[in-house]
Amino acid sequence: MIVRSTSSWLRLLFVWHGSVLPRIMPRLLLVFFISIAAAAVRGWWLSEHADSALSIPAFTLMGVSLAIFLGFRNSVSYERFWEARKLWGSLLIVNRSLARQALSLAPDNADARRLIDGCCAFAYALKAQLRGDDADAHLRRLLPEEILDKALAGRFKPALILAWLGQLTARMRRDGALSDMQWHALDRNLNSLSEVLGGCERIASTPIPFTYRVLLNRTVTVYSLLLPAGLVTSIGWLTPAIAVFIAYTYLALEVIGEELEEPFGKEGNDLPLSALCHGIEASLREMQGEDVAAPAPEQQGIYLY
Amino acid sequence: MIVRSTSSWLRLLFVWHGSVLPRIMPRLLLVFFISIAAAAVRGWWLSEHADSALSIPAFTLMGVSLAIFLGFRNSVSYERFWEARKLWGSLLIVNRSLARQALSLAPDNADARRLIDGCCAFAYALKAQLRGDDADAHLRRLLPEEILDKALAGRFKPALILAWLGQLTARMRRDGALSDMQWHALDRNLNSLSEVLGGCERIASTPIPFTYRVLLNRTVTVYSLLLPAGLVTSIGWLTPAIAVFIAYTYLALEVIGEELEEPFGKEGNDLPLSALCHGIEASLREMQGEDVAAPAPEQQGIYLY
Amino acid sequence: MIVRSTSSWLRLLFVWHGSVLPRIMPRLLLVFFISIAAAAVRGWWLSEHADSALSIPAFTLMGVSLAIFLGFRNSVSYERFWEARKLWGSLLIVNRSLARQALSLAPDNADARRLIDGCCAFAYALKAQLRGDDADAHLRRLLPEEILDKALAGRFKPALILAWLGQLTARMRRDGALSDMQWHALDRNLNSLSEVLGGCERIASTPIPFTYRVLLNRTVTVYSLLLPAGLVTSIGWLTPAIAVFIAYTYLALEVIGEELEEPFGKEGNDLPLSALCHGIEASLREMQGEDVAAPAPEQQGIYLY
Amino acid sequence: MIVRSTSSWLRLLFVWHGSVLPRIMPRLLLVFFISIAAAAVRGWWLSEHADSALSIPAFTLMGVSLAIFLGFRNSVSYERFWEARKLWGSLLIVNRSLARQALSLAPDNADARRLIDGCCAFAYALKAQLRGDDADAHLRRLLPEEILDKALAGRFKPALILAWLGQLTARMRRDGALSDMQWHALDRNLNSLSEVLGGCERIASTPIPFTYRVLLNRTVTVYSLLLPAGLVTSIGWLTPAIAVFIAYTYLALEVIGEELEEPFGKEGNDLPLSALCHGIEASLREMQGEDVAAPAPEQQGIYLY
Amino acid sequence: MIVRSTSSWLRLLFVWHGSVLPRIMPRLLLVFFISIAAAAVRGWWLSEHADSALSIPAFTLMGVSLAIFLGFRNSVSYERFWEARKLWGSLLIVNRSLARQALSLAPDNADARRLIDGCCAFAYALKAQLRGDDADAHLRRLLPEEILDKALAGRFKPALILAWLGQLTARMRRDGALSDMQWHALDRNLNSLSEVLGGCERIASTPIPFTYRVLLNRTVTVYSLLLPAGLVTSIGWLTPAIAVFIAYTYLALEVIGEELEEPFGKEGNDLPLSALCHGIEASLREMQGEDVAAPAPEQQGIYLY
Repeated sequence: MIVRSTSSWLRLLFVWHGSVLPRIMPRLLLVFFISIAAAAVRGWWLSEHADSALSIPAFTLMGVSLAIFLGFRNSVSYERFWEARKLWGSLLIVNRSLARQALSLAPDNADARRLIDGCCAFAYALKAQLRGDDADAHLRRLLPEEILDKALAGRFKPALILAWLGQLTARMRRDGALSDMQWHALDRNLNSLSEVLGGCERIASTPIPFTYRVLLNRTVTVYSLLLPAGLVTSIGWLTPAIAVFIAYTYLALEVIGEELEEPFGKEGNDLPLSALCHGIEASLREMQGEDVAAPAPEQQGIYLY
Repeated sequence: MIVRSTSSWLRLLFVWHGSVLPRIMPRLLLVFFISIAAAAVRGWWLSEHADSALSIPAFTLMGVSLAIFLGFRNSVSYERFWEARKLWGSLLIVNRSLARQALSLAPDNADARRLIDGCCAFAYALKAQLRGDDADAHLRRLLPEEILDKALAGRFKPALILAWLGQLTARMRRDGALSDMQWHALDRNLNSLSEVLGGCERIASTPIPFTYRVLLNRTVTVYSLLLPAGLVTSIGWLTPAIAVFIAYTYLALEVIGEELEEPFGKEGNDLPLSALCHGIEASLREMQGEDVAAPAPEQQGIYLY
Repeated sequence: MIVRSTSSWLRLLFVWHGSVLPRIMPRLLLVFFISIAAAAVRGWWLSEHADSALSIPAFTLMGVSLAIFLGFRNSVSYERFWEARKLWGSLLIVNRSLARQALSLAPDNADARRLIDGCCAFAYALKAQLRGDDADAHLRRLLPEEILDKALAGRFKPALILAWLGQLTARMRRDGALSDMQWHALDRNLNSLSEVLGGCERIASTPIPFTYRVLLNRTVTVYSLLLPAGLVTSIGWLTPAIAVFIAYTYLALEVIGEELEEPFGKEGNDLPLSALCHGIEASLREMQGEDVAAPAPEQQGIYLY
Repeated sequence: MIVRSTSSWLRLLFVWHGSVLPRIMPRLLLVFFISIAAAAVRGWWLSEHADSALSIPAFTLMGVSLAIFLGFRNSVSYERFWEARKLWGSLLIVNRSLARQALSLAPDNADARRLIDGCCAFAYALKAQLRGDDADAHLRRLLPEEILDKALAGRFKPALILAWLGQLTARMRRDGALSDMQWHALDRNLNSLSEVLGGCERIASTPIPFTYRVLLNRTVTVYSLLLPAGLVTSIGWLTPAIAVFIAYTYLALEVIGEELEEPFGKEGNDLPLSALCHGIEASLREMQGEDVAAPAPEQQGIYLY
Repeated sequence: MIVRSTSSWLRLLFVWHGSVLPRIMPRLLLVFFISIAAAAVRGWWLSEHADSALSIPAFTLMGVSLAIFLGFRNSVSYERFWEARKLWGSLLIVNRSLARQALSLAPDNADARRLIDGCCAFAYALKAQLRGDDADAHLRRLLPEEILDKALAGRFKPALILAWLGQLTARMRRDGALSDMQWHALDRNLNSLSEVLGGCERIASTPIPFTYRVLLNRTVTVYSLLLPAGLVTSIGWLTPAIAVFIAYTYLALEVIGEELEEPFGKEGNDLPLSALCHGIEASLREMQGEDVAAPAPEQQGIYLY
């Protein structure tokens, strides 16, 4: 996530946003050179082929499908991003509820403490699964032996930790630390953790259908590359500037959609999963009257991961 | 589902997507030949009927209903696809929760093990019902005799398996393996399975109202076929290329909508139900400390089913 | 519901959809005759009033409100249709859950059997209330004497049947056939039936605000009738064909919205409530190991009711 | 709510809808007189200032923000209307569920009867709070002495009645008329009543942000008033008719949004809260086998309040 | 929140809305001066570079991305605003439910009274966390010693108060003031408070992705600044007025989006958190038969905070 609070319109006009521009530069350059070429041959073409010139209205016919594709891609990508954020918000909510229940119902119980540690471990394991990296250090720090090896070796790590949290609460029930109803109250929250896990896996494993990407890319690219030919008949040597600017807004809209579509990565606009994990642990620890053992992830330039 | 990760815009421009092009080819060819004809007779027509020529602005009037139809079809189809995916995500979530409850509450109970097998069988039976194929091999592998025959012969197979899961939990309650409250916790998750089943059946049995298909098809087709006549007056011999490209974006948008509308099939953009079933069983087995008996479905070319 | 699976674009182009065309025919004919008249007087008008001619761009100004009205009406109508379908999907889901609970918790109890019959009766009574027809035959078949007379005479029949289902479960609780918790599990599902009932009543009793219909009808009709005058200046004798086609897409969009808005009727695009009721009973009976007493509703031509 | 079922397009064209036209008449007249003036001075202006004339394309640039404002206002207002309707649908649903539970669990209990009366009183009190009028007659009829004075004098009347319903159920629990679990089942429905109350208060107390109203009003008004100047250059003396019609669709769209935004009033398109309250009481009374004491609100002309 | 009820369109036309205009004034002035300059050099430019003049249709090509950006920003910002309002509505709903439960189940219990005080304190603490100010006075007034110091010093204050509310209910359970089921009923509502807290934190900590702001600002600003050059060719000296008006609608749409995006601030369109907190306490106190100790926040001019 980019943590920057520039609010002046003037600064925003010239800010460098590194994650978008490099990816659309080749096409922008192409548009620029085609514009130059079109402006150069324009006089000759109009005198030779006066009845075969692209003009601006022809582009409005392409505009319908372009608008549908771009608008659709944009809103779907943002919804995926925002749903992912909601799921991580739920993770904080449910973990706090579990900690509240454990601390109030069984304040001095060793398993209650393990439960809270396990909730933190679940968050780190989920982050690792979604990013394809590794949470071993955190798991070693937070999980007891009875589950650690299984969790380190497992394929669906967060699901294994969640199953173990279920065993913890069932044990607390059998030990008499929880009544039947209290076990149920915790178990409902474990169901909610299962929903968070499954929801994140769904977003991570099911991209927007491939055919959309193909179609959107083709429409935007062909439209951008034809643009100079259409503009040149009426605006002449202003074409390079205007065509590049219009193409820039379309291509950037396509690329930001691509970035938000996969919100669990480490690109500029992705969710700061490390910071979210740390925040979850910090909040649970404060409820226990403790500090977090792990250091907070630092901001790297303007990015927070 | 197409599992391809081509990300370069240049490759996307030339990738072959086999599920869309063949279905729109006849109309694209028609547009192409009409374009050729229109460009050929253009000079004669304009000299004879100068005041009766379609021009581009006339098409913007059709654009309103075209945009509404295409935009509507597109977003409704995608919502159906995504709701179907969410339902299958729920299936994984609920099955994991049931397995967690069974394993933690009644770890050594034979019915608890049957329950987990039954959850897997439910997923395979649902896939078979939605795709109209047959899950007998999986059912034979996973279901005990007390339900197998009924499930193999039944019309609503997943509903029968679900009813049997209810009998299992009631039996575990009567046997004392579950307390009343614990039975309730499992029963709530069985209700959720019922919601997944009913939701999938709803999507499968209720297509987008037929009249929409008729109207959308007519609007898009007539619009595409008239396009060359409208473009030719201003862009002449550029018409064949431009008209085919514009028609391509509209027709492809119609066809992808048609494909996503029925997300349970085996077309290019449909949900990989076999892989999802296997993933569900794999996750439950791992929680039991076991491996899946059935092999994972293999990717076939770029498709996963 | 129209149950037709014509998928060829060519067939869709010429299929007759009886529920839309007759309702817009008068206006289409009017557009046709105005087009003829406009094409006939065009030469004279342009020579007399050269500076007072409607042209195509003037219509794009009307396009904004037209697009908002049509797009809004269309999506709201579809949402009503789809919400109604979801409610009937819920009805199946909840009825199955109730049957599962009754059959597993009190397999040989007479009230459990009555409960399942009552669930079916609830569906038929709801259909009858929504369609304004009569479910007496089904109620007589399914309800015992203790409720039958009240249900036949009542004003809110499904609500009365639901209240009686509550009495059944309370009686089963008092008789010891259900524990307190098990009663609660059934009672939650009765709450869900209440939600289905109230949701359907809401859709049936609250149409889209009347002012929208007035405004939409005026905008679409005036726009369509002015269309020939606007088109004729640039496309001459092509006007009758093009104007009728454009008007057709707008008027059909209005009419299909009107049909979907009230999804409980018996028009072409309405929900097949009879078939849904039969499907619910068939599924519950299969869970009981029985067949449905009532025959399945037959398809009438291309329609299923 | 307007209860009219005129379905002919011809009638809809000429129906008088009294709540919209009077509010936009001043601006429509202004547009009309500006149109006359513009058509009159047109010849002179074009000869003097040929290069400074508004033309239709200039309006398409304003069209983007106009479309966003009108489309946004329209859908947000309708969503508020529909959410309000859903909340009142919930009120019926939950009241029926409470009545079902009270009647089946404690059929002859005096408090159970009071509970049902209290549910009805809650609906009337909510209507009175939302409309800023007075439900004293209904409260006197429905509430017992123990709560009546407090409810009549209170500021948040429905909240006080709801709190008293909580006391009733707690008393029934203490008296042994309800088990703990049964108390819980009722208490959950009281939570749902609290949601209905809070939801209605939210809609009533939080209008669409004021700045939107300012911006929308300015854009629509300025656009409408400029319209004649833009149209007159191309359509001459047709301007008064066309400009007034276009302005009518925009201004009506603004005004209907304003009306739906506050769905609890007594304007033409508002919710018929009195009829809804009566329907709720009628349904509960029928479940008790009784008739409603209060008369049904009558339709006043085409309106139902 | 602006609490003004001006409803006349004429007044709305000239009302001063202080939070928007100052922020867009620099750009509006720029547009104005560019318009003057463009109108001045127009004659010379058209004679020298007749084939390189921006015209209105060129702007319609930019219109697609402009409409997507503005429409997207607008609806996403409003959704954030409305979700925030819903969360605060939930806070009132849940607090009332908790108070109803505490007052009816344990009317004379000292901890029940503390619970209600704690619910109020939670609201004030949440407001302080979201606005970055300080609720110490309210916390001192409302919280007992056992939690006060921890709450004053904590980082996540509302989470700490919520955890303490959990300890209160657990203590009431242990003291026998609540049965197990009754504890559960309160605990579910504490879970709902946790959802409110987490939801508000999510909105406050995750702005709309930064890249959108950059892109939207660039598109709107460049579009506005080019506008005079495009309009001047056809409307001449009308350009300054029309260009400034069009730019005003776009820029205001951008700025209102920015304000609604962060609904917890103290700007003109933000939520009146102080008034909402006071309303919550007033409603709970009335249920207790008491008055609020703290004075109601006063309206400051047209604003309520």
